[in-house]
Amino acid sequence: MNSAANNALLIVLSAPSGGGKTTLCTQLLAANTHVDRAVTCTTRAPRGGECDGVDYFFLTREVFEQKLAAGEFLEHANVYGNFYGTLKSEVLAKLRAGRDVLLAIDVQGAASVRAIAQQDEEFRHALATVFLTPESAAVLEQRLHNRGEDAPEAVQKRLAVARQEVAQWVYFDYLIYSTSVAEDLRRMQTVLDAEKMRCVRVSPPNF
Amino acid sequence: MNSAANNALLIVLSAPSGGGKTTLCTQLLAANTHVDRAVTCTTRAPRGGECDGVDYFFLTREVFEQKLAAGEFLEHANVYGNFYGTLKSEVLAKLRAGRDVLLAIDVQGAASVRAIAQQDEEFRHALATVFLTPESAAVLEQRLHNRGEDAPEAVQKRLAVARQEVAQWVYFDYLIYSTSVAEDLRRMQTVLDAEKMRCVRVSPPNF
Repeated sequence: MNSAANNALLIVLSAPSGGGKTTLCTQLLAANTHVDRAVTCTTRAPRGGECDGVDYFFLTREVFEQKLAAGEFLEHANVYGNFYGTLKSEVLAKLRAGRDVLLAIDVQGAASVRAIAQQDEEFRHALATVFLTPESAAVLEQRLHNRGEDAPEAVQKRLAVARQEVAQWVYFDYLIYSTSVAEDLRRMQTVLDAEKMRCVRVSPPNF
Repeated sequence: MNSAANNALLIVLSAPSGGGKTTLCTQLLAANTHVDRAVTCTTRAPRGGECDGVDYFFLTREVFEQKLAAGEFLEHANVYGNFYGTLKSEVLAKLRAGRDVLLAIDVQGAASVRAIAQQDEEFRHALATVFLTPESAAVLEQRLHNRGEDAPEAVQKRLAVARQEVAQWVYFDYLIYSTSVAEDLRRMQTVLDAEKMRCVRVSPPNF
């Protein structure tokens, strides 16, 4: 029942826009040396100090589109005219090396990963998906107001987008109601630790 | 996708004989007020201080066999001539009241629960199964020797039984390698907490 090359975990974390998943991922990676971030491809230009292959794989638009057409991406997105995407090969190389992989992506990206995992035993075997969200639109609205970065109309726009994103929650394996960063981290760690105890991921007992 | 009456969890814990699951269950129940023990039926006579409906449901052999023939048990076992069994109705009543239920049973019992859950949406929805075992036969043998309760031949007999039981590990959702009671408890708590964050068990976000 365990046909994959190894038992590594691909953990996908999604949240509505502005859900604060970046901070959570940074802390989660710092606390778990067995987990790697998947390096993302992008067509945007490198910024000061960014290293190719470390921060991103910097691709030309042409190369990105070739890889896209060849089905090489696990997920991709177009953000303000720049493409971003995670290569299947990047994730598989890490999983096959026995590394767990954390992928923080939006709900469309998560849907793409799920669709590919349904067709691909190796991804399906590795995958666990987590959706992180405030427990209600009212709580998110309050947070956006408190943050004070957006004008009232922009807050309403963000809320409308978040509503569509949160509607996807049922397709995830786990739902975490975000409260504080410390508590979100604790819950995410619980999911990670439990997933590592699933029978499909452990080494067999020696009996 | 959530057709059950509620989102309560039925957590089944199995271990090879002498695996120490009773201590673990007692501590787990003490630490989790949302989790109930399922009260078991038995045909053995009550011992001093045991209350019907609290410690056990004490049934006559005839009544037990009637219920068995009627398919009322989720699992049952014959231990040295006495029947023990968990009624489906006992577990369902608790789950429907929103209580999580912990069931500590042997591997045959767990197989029975899994088989029933495959046919019954309500049990399938609630069920998570955990197998607790020493990581190797050598570790178990050492523990049995250290315990000093069994003669060498009895240890070998126990090991042979344990080998057959541990072979069932692949049919469980989670595998915990037992180390100390404190660490086993921590891992079991992690599984319990993570299962409560599964999308099939949470209240929907209010968006």
